[in-house]
Amino acid sequence: MSGKKKKDLQEIGEFGLIRLLTETIELKNKTTIKGVGDDAAVVSMGDLQTVLTTDLLTEGIHFDLIYTPLKHLGYKAVIVNLSDVYAMNAIPSQILVSIAVSSKFTTEMIEELYEGIHKACKFYGVDLIGGDTNSSLTGLTISITAVGAVPKERIVYRSGAKDKDLICVTGDLGAAYMGLQLLEREKRLFNKSNSIQPDLTGYDYILERQLKPEARKDIIQKLAENEIMPTAMIDISDGLSSEILHICDASDKGCRLYIDKIPVAEETRKMAVELSMEPVSISMNGGEDYELLFTVNLADYDKLVMIPGVHIIGHITPKKDGCYMVLPDGSLTEITALGWNSLKLRD
Amino acid sequence: MSGKKKKDLQEIGEFGLIRLLTETIELKNKTTIKGVGDDAAVVSMGDLQTVLTTDLLTEGIHFDLIYTPLKHLGYKAVIVNLSDVYAMNAIPSQILVSIAVSSKFTTEMIEELYEGIHKACKFYGVDLIGGDTNSSLTGLTISITAVGAVPKERIVYRSGAKDKDLICVTGDLGAAYMGLQLLEREKRLFNKSNSIQPDLTGYDYILERQLKPEARKDIIQKLAENEIMPTAMIDISDGLSSEILHICDASDKGCRLYIDKIPVAEETRKMAVELSMEPVSISMNGGEDYELLFTVNLADYDKLVMIPGVHIIGHITPKKDGCYMVLPDGSLTEITALGWNSLKLRD
Repeated sequence: MSGKKKKDLQEIGEFGLIRLLTETIELKNKTTIKGVGDDAAVVSMGDLQTVLTTDLLTEGIHFDLIYTPLKHLGYKAVIVNLSDVYAMNAIPSQILVSIAVSSKFTTEMIEELYEGIHKACKFYGVDLIGGDTNSSLTGLTISITAVGAVPKERIVYRSGAKDKDLICVTGDLGAAYMGLQLLEREKRLFNKSNSIQPDLTGYDYILERQLKPEARKDIIQKLAENEIMPTAMIDISDGLSSEILHICDASDKGCRLYIDKIPVAEETRKMAVELSMEPVSISMNGGEDYELLFTVNLADYDKLVMIPGVHIIGHITPKKDGCYMVLPDGSLTEITALGWNSLKLRD
Repeated sequence: MSGKKKKDLQEIGEFGLIRLLTETIELKNKTTIKGVGDDAAVVSMGDLQTVLTTDLLTEGIHFDLIYTPLKHLGYKAVIVNLSDVYAMNAIPSQILVSIAVSSKFTTEMIEELYEGIHKACKFYGVDLIGGDTNSSLTGLTISITAVGAVPKERIVYRSGAKDKDLICVTGDLGAAYMGLQLLEREKRLFNKSNSIQPDLTGYDYILERQLKPEARKDIIQKLAENEIMPTAMIDISDGLSSEILHICDASDKGCRLYIDKIPVAEETRKMAVELSMEPVSISMNGGEDYELLFTVNLADYDKLVMIPGVHIIGHITPKKDGCYMVLPDGSLTEITALGWNSLKLRD
């Protein structure tokens, strides 16, 4: 977009901006009846049930524009929502995107944000069908609602875990949180002395996990192909501890998680050591991994181990046995949700 | 809620707050399969098509907490969205509500906001099925997505207006804008001298139209009862000028609006005179009325006049005839959308 004169948002106006951001949209899902351009969008799911989820991201709390490229931010804002749809065992098909921006943003910056949004839509086969474009007194706010569909009998709630079910997690955990810590460290160094250029080489993996996460569409497809129906499922946005407690709570069960089974990438471990942090604690409590945590019946074990990227990390127990991590020496530590409380209020 | 100790948001935490705000929710629509409490909500519209709309409101741009009671704000934030659903000739059935709040807000304040949200849900028969609760660096942001349903053959878009169709508007226009001007005037006076108490007696109607608007559920019901199917419809949130141009643009048509047919309440007229403003300009450009603007076939005239609160204000013309207001002396003035551009950016 270089070379173009920077356009003032005030000059282009709300309708001009909406036109600019939506004129290239091609609707691809046959469930999308009407997209942007009327009082509301229209979708038709036929026999399927509709799944709806929404997330709101605010500048300074959920993202820091000092080190977050706007295109990545747009991409990630979509992923956060799609991940919730997949966690219902559903397929996302539409999103609605609302933004509020202050006058520090140019039209080019908003276009960059939407470039990321459109890229995620394309990659995940999702139509952008509506939204709202507003101004704010300070900073950027992004609110996305994602819509998906699933046959009634295939919906997976958090509440279906049964005693002896295997507890599975996809990918690896804690990397996004380590990426965030790294970016925060470099920001502090940069703020101290503007002459120090942040050195981020060799940290690609954890940075990508923080800045451009993906939703586990592939796992949902593989589970279906292998005819595995999870008994309970949730996506890991607030950290494994918090999410497994949600499943146990909703299912009225307990659990055992084997610490040495929890997948942690080498880069995550390295960064944790560098920051004098405990890799176990990071994999249990680091947020924003957008991996899937699910439970399956023991009978599915043979099919399950055929799916790459799925790790069995424990099992469900009766509620009375509580929720515990099992350490390598066999001792137990109760699981508590330190989590990733986004309600750390500041003003 | 007096007498209770003010609870700090940090103390109660995100999950505590969500529990507090959602524990009393009773789901009433049979299309609601699963509400708050999983990764996503689930709805099932059967043969009906699903209508989706979203709005984002930010403090200082869309509302001023100096004169907006939080309960009213919650109510209005829902109405703004339901109005869009009705404007598709659909019936709203669910909403998702996301908020971001700074540390200046107490739990009691958020409860008050949700009291208004719940009240609107109850009155309009809508289920609150999901959302997101976050913190922000400054102020309050509310993002609502509304979901509704309508049989495929009954959806009304903006694009269906035909030549010679009657143009109709419900209720009266400009009152909400006059209410806003009054509140802004009293705020300025109050800021100049704290000792002057705002005197708002005798202005009830315009204040209520600004602070606690309603969506025209009744009109949608009456149109259906009288077997009138509008050819095009939109809700009036940005002012009549802007909305009729949307209909004409989407329908590829022109129009004539008869200025002396546009309904303006006595209180609106009085306030306009008091503020040395032109009532016609206010009824054409004042925003936030949440009335319905629609077009109907001439053949429906006899049925239409039986519905109280519907005013015929003009007719559709071929596109080449342009979009004009007809003044009482028969002269024409072109309609331009001054509107209510919410993208007046500040920082």
